[in-house]
Amino acid sequence: MSTRIITISRQFGSGGRTIAKEVAKRLGYAYYDKEIIEKVAEKTGFDPKYIEENGEYAPGKSIFSLASSFIGSSRVMGGMSAYDYLWVTQRNTILDIVEQGPCVIVGRCADYILRDRKDALHVFIHASMEARAIRIVNRYGESDKKPEERLKEKDSKRSVNYKHFTGRVWGDCRNYDITLNSDTVGIERSVQIIVDLAKGESKSVLVDKENLR
Amino acid sequence: MSTRIITISRQFGSGGRTIAKEVAKRLGYAYYDKEIIEKVAEKTGFDPKYIEENGEYAPGKSIFSLASSFIGSSRVMGGMSAYDYLWVTQRNTILDIVEQGPCVIVGRCADYILRDRKDALHVFIHASMEARAIRIVNRYGESDKKPEERLKEKDSKRSVNYKHFTGRVWGDCRNYDITLNSDTVGIERSVQIIVDLAKGESKSVLVDKENLR
Repeated sequence: MSTRIITISRQFGSGGRTIAKEVAKRLGYAYYDKEIIEKVAEKTGFDPKYIEENGEYAPGKSIFSLASSFIGSSRVMGGMSAYDYLWVTQRNTILDIVEQGPCVIVGRCADYILRDRKDALHVFIHASMEARAIRIVNRYGESDKKPEERLKEKDSKRSVNYKHFTGRVWGDCRNYDITLNSDTVGIERSVQIIVDLAKGESKSVLVDKENLR
Repeated sequence: MSTRIITISRQFGSGGRTIAKEVAKRLGYAYYDKEIIEKVAEKTGFDPKYIEENGEYAPGKSIFSLASSFIGSSRVMGGMSAYDYLWVTQRNTILDIVEQGPCVIVGRCADYILRDRKDALHVFIHASMEARAIRIVNRYGESDKKPEERLKEKDSKRSVNYKHFTGRVWGDCRNYDITLNSDTVGIERSVQIIVDLAKGESKSVLVDKENLR
């Protein structure tokens, strides 16, 4: 049996999304990234922009203002904070998605949510600060802040969000089946390695066969 | 140009050494693991057992008793502690080794020592606690301590040693080009991925070509 689910966690600017899209295309798997935001928006009524900002990042001012706008509807959120409500809805959305067929899911702590699935391959993509800085300026343009500052801020927020909901350290390789540096391994080779792994024998077979060596 | 140097860092019991040996064999590269200990023993006069215990692990009682036996010879060690002297000698040995030809080096912070080499591929191998426990009992036999306790102790010591000399977090994927979970990816597939990467284009070529995407 081949791998049915691939989660791809990534540093901002590492090319992880490019890799994920290409992997999904070559395997013919469904691809979920912004699609998750849309589904969560439908279920919660939250603004997609807020979900994008807060679904993977630590709560900042924006989430508190979001929460305050929901003060009157705490029953809808089951008494949870807006931030926790967003997490629970996002988690349930991911659990629904994987039941619908083979897929590639980008970010959103999917590696943690699906950590016990034997049919899932968990991947983390990172790159050097220099390569990421070039990539974000090319893709998103310049801003008032230096690209390195923007990257450090994003890294820090993702790391805090991940720790908050999973209790784990973001970027610790032990949470993943494979991690790749996209600027030394290369985008194309990273795609190929992931596709080959997904087509290979599933984890459960391997664990039974090889862990006694 | 293909990769000339492969450093393989590994969790105890992960099969990292088995993978490293097989990679060296298939590529026809020199293999350095215990060989480094022998070289360091020759240069320092330290007992190979002490070097093995302290070259990758945090200083414990043994290193202080080792140091005390060298109190009269501080000039030989340039006034350094035995622990720092061991580190410096091990570091210089690794820097010598890589000048002698293509090679695979296991452990000993070689990933950090050779971090700026464009012709080096840095790999980290890990595995689940369950798989590692089975492997160490099969390989080294039972002991008074539970295998999980032995593993946790080893992990902790390696982590402290790595932090002490490199300032980096052991197991953080950002220190490696690739990390692999040997019980979900499999020993044979891990070997194949590393061999293929080593035979591919070198890092410098990739970085120039792909980091602008």
